[in-house]
Amino acid sequence: MPGFANTVKAVRGALLDIKKVVNNPEDLEDNLRYFSDGLLIIDQGKVVWLGSWEQGRHRLPAGLRICDYRGKLVVPGLVDTHIHYPQMEIIGAYGEQLLEWLNTYTFPTEMKYGDKSYAEEMAGLFVRELLKNGTTTAMVFCSVHPESVDALFEACDRKHMRVIAGKVMMDRNAPDELLDTPESSYRDSRRLLQKWHKHNRLLYAVTPRFAPTSSPEQLEKAMMLREEFPDVYVQTHLSENPREIEWVRSLYPNRDGYLDVYNHYRLTGERSVFAHCVHLTDKEWQVMKDTGSSVAFCPTSNMYLGSGLFKYRRAVDDGVRVGMATDVGAGTSFNLFETLNEAYKVVQLQKARLAAIECFYRATLGGAHALYLDHCIGNLDPGKEADFVVLDPVATEIQQLRWNNSKTLDEKLFVLMTLGDDRNIYRTYVDGRLVYSRTR
Amino acid sequence: MPGFANTVKAVRGALLDIKKVVNNPEDLEDNLRYFSDGLLIIDQGKVVWLGSWEQGRHRLPAGLRICDYRGKLVVPGLVDTHIHYPQMEIIGAYGEQLLEWLNTYTFPTEMKYGDKSYAEEMAGLFVRELLKNGTTTAMVFCSVHPESVDALFEACDRKHMRVIAGKVMMDRNAPDELLDTPESSYRDSRRLLQKWHKHNRLLYAVTPRFAPTSSPEQLEKAMMLREEFPDVYVQTHLSENPREIEWVRSLYPNRDGYLDVYNHYRLTGERSVFAHCVHLTDKEWQVMKDTGSSVAFCPTSNMYLGSGLFKYRRAVDDGVRVGMATDVGAGTSFNLFETLNEAYKVVQLQKARLAAIECFYRATLGGAHALYLDHCIGNLDPGKEADFVVLDPVATEIQQLRWNNSKTLDEKLFVLMTLGDDRNIYRTYVDGRLVYSRTR
Repeated sequence: MPGFANTVKAVRGALLDIKKVVNNPEDLEDNLRYFSDGLLIIDQGKVVWLGSWEQGRHRLPAGLRICDYRGKLVVPGLVDTHIHYPQMEIIGAYGEQLLEWLNTYTFPTEMKYGDKSYAEEMAGLFVRELLKNGTTTAMVFCSVHPESVDALFEACDRKHMRVIAGKVMMDRNAPDELLDTPESSYRDSRRLLQKWHKHNRLLYAVTPRFAPTSSPEQLEKAMMLREEFPDVYVQTHLSENPREIEWVRSLYPNRDGYLDVYNHYRLTGERSVFAHCVHLTDKEWQVMKDTGSSVAFCPTSNMYLGSGLFKYRRAVDDGVRVGMATDVGAGTSFNLFETLNEAYKVVQLQKARLAAIECFYRATLGGAHALYLDHCIGNLDPGKEADFVVLDPVATEIQQLRWNNSKTLDEKLFVLMTLGDDRNIYRTYVDGRLVYSRTR
Repeated sequence: MPGFANTVKAVRGALLDIKKVVNNPEDLEDNLRYFSDGLLIIDQGKVVWLGSWEQGRHRLPAGLRICDYRGKLVVPGLVDTHIHYPQMEIIGAYGEQLLEWLNTYTFPTEMKYGDKSYAEEMAGLFVRELLKNGTTTAMVFCSVHPESVDALFEACDRKHMRVIAGKVMMDRNAPDELLDTPESSYRDSRRLLQKWHKHNRLLYAVTPRFAPTSSPEQLEKAMMLREEFPDVYVQTHLSENPREIEWVRSLYPNRDGYLDVYNHYRLTGERSVFAHCVHLTDKEWQVMKDTGSSVAFCPTSNMYLGSGLFKYRRAVDDGVRVGMATDVGAGTSFNLFETLNEAYKVVQLQKARLAAIECFYRATLGGAHALYLDHCIGNLDPGKEADFVVLDPVATEIQQLRWNNSKTLDEKLFVLMTLGDDRNIYRTYVDGRLVYSRTR
């Protein structure tokens, strides 16, 4: 491969990913790609080759230093489809269901994010936590303040991350200090969108917090933004909690339920991601499917706030795009393994099954698919952006014991997801560059 | 304090415990005992004094080296009321509900524990995992093999631990290699009981696995043991899974439900601990209460195997003794903080509340109470056995952030339980001796 010797990077180790998007999880097994002694060649932030070490080694320029991760497991960067960066500092706050939790913890905390330097400090910690947990792409709620959005995008841009984020739009039912107006939210969102959308790897999401905190006028403004910039994202919350749903009904009496509010303002569709969707009706599931809208499945958060059990199997069977989400700070962990462990329990409590390979897919290529980003991230295909994680599957004594007595790759993968946490993240690479390294 | 200078130990740090057993969790706040700069004096394995450093320092012999844990938090050793040591090596095994899980993973694994040297190796790892997680007392299922019981008690005895364990009695509905007979189970249990019950701090539990794997004849033998040795313990499983309950009905058609089987054979009562109790009827709750029987609440396991949500609030309101339990290997963590985090979710999903202080109580004095051991362990009262844990509340960056912005002790405690894991266990002391020290 003459010509790229000065920027090329070669990674040797066990490589694992999913070859392509599947509609039926039963097809995953046929699409699992594994090289026990693999080679990944990267140039200028893109994968240019992957395969076995034996087949690929002759392609490498002489004298190139190899990143040798034998004994580790190299997988695509993990994808978190819903998280709030200003809530990092209230992670694990006690004892409420959704609406009380917002008033008691969330809103008072978010008030601090109008201070740019404070937001910068927190954005830095937030990005570090993502990378420490192997999350290379996230869809992120900022606060209502434009400063918080700039701070986050700047922090992500420094790491060359593929991150989607946006300014919260919220013009009612929250403390005055946190309210914008339909006009100011439109103006600020538009400016931020023009500044950040497609700037390097960054993408913008129009972000009405949820129907109860936006007036009809504000949702119209959100709709205008979506129509003006058709390739922009939308993110919001949907049907998390029964009392929330009732509240939406009373606020929007002319709409046919919660999702119909968003649908009416044309906020459903491709690149629209709805967090939670715990209590959708049959009709709403149909709308999700028909519009190509995605769900961010937040198992930890849904149990932590007592919201209920997401009908995961139904969503997948219906062909709705589903990504995994930590939902920090109502979720109590940044870690997607811990989140998958909770997802498994949510599914088990509904007497259904969730296989290890399906978990793995959901946190990588399936998550990318839910974010309409599977053309550029989610696996290690040549041409994809080189976001990947080097896993240490035996970071604790109990993991060592379990890894050693697991016979199949599937079993090993499952153990990693059941017992794994941030200690299993040995290295994180974004855009082909090392951005996190476990210190011990 | 003349006379004990050569064996005395003094621990300085923040001290936290619950003063006494309460019937109503609302009384816990009045019984929380906290010294921000405290002193704990130990002699010959017993607490002899606790209070503030200022009040206690003059009691110390001149020249005594102080174990200085300022900046850390000293709490009573944690109590795990239900765990299987031969299942440690199948922790996080995939994809089944109870009965399939037993046949697929548990039984094949337990076959190995007839080999004494293998059992010894695993018992050593098991005890290390307990101590690494701050668990100083546990109620443990061994396998059907007497060798497994000797191996475990020997390992616990070396650490001077207060542990309750017993040989599984199982004479049907399992692979032949794992079956005993009513007679052999009686003989072996009796011999082990006489060898280990009250040997140093160890206690024996008569351990029929669960009604489906014991014939009526075997349960009669268990009853004989209980009557012959009235201060011995009983441990078994109860009402974990709907199919299991149906099975019991078909196996014991003359009994009025699952618990009535145990009650008929007088296996209920003080020092009888029933794991799970997810699906008890009103009548069964009444029997639990009337007989002074205890529940081992296994939230992780109950979600992991899809068994259902334990009616925690009801149990407590009814005045039934409830302890926390990891239930490894169907539980996926040895850690009681992680287990409390799951307990919180189980309670939240039932639209009820579980306060931090109640979590803390449940894992310490409340657990000791469930095991009828609150006279000797569970808090730091003078006279109690000196089992305690030194917690590092800020073992990760995100914990640091949350600890610093938590205002009250209650909030800090809650954060510890929500975000905590084995990394928060800095030192573990058993019988006044240091038995585990975090290496980094």
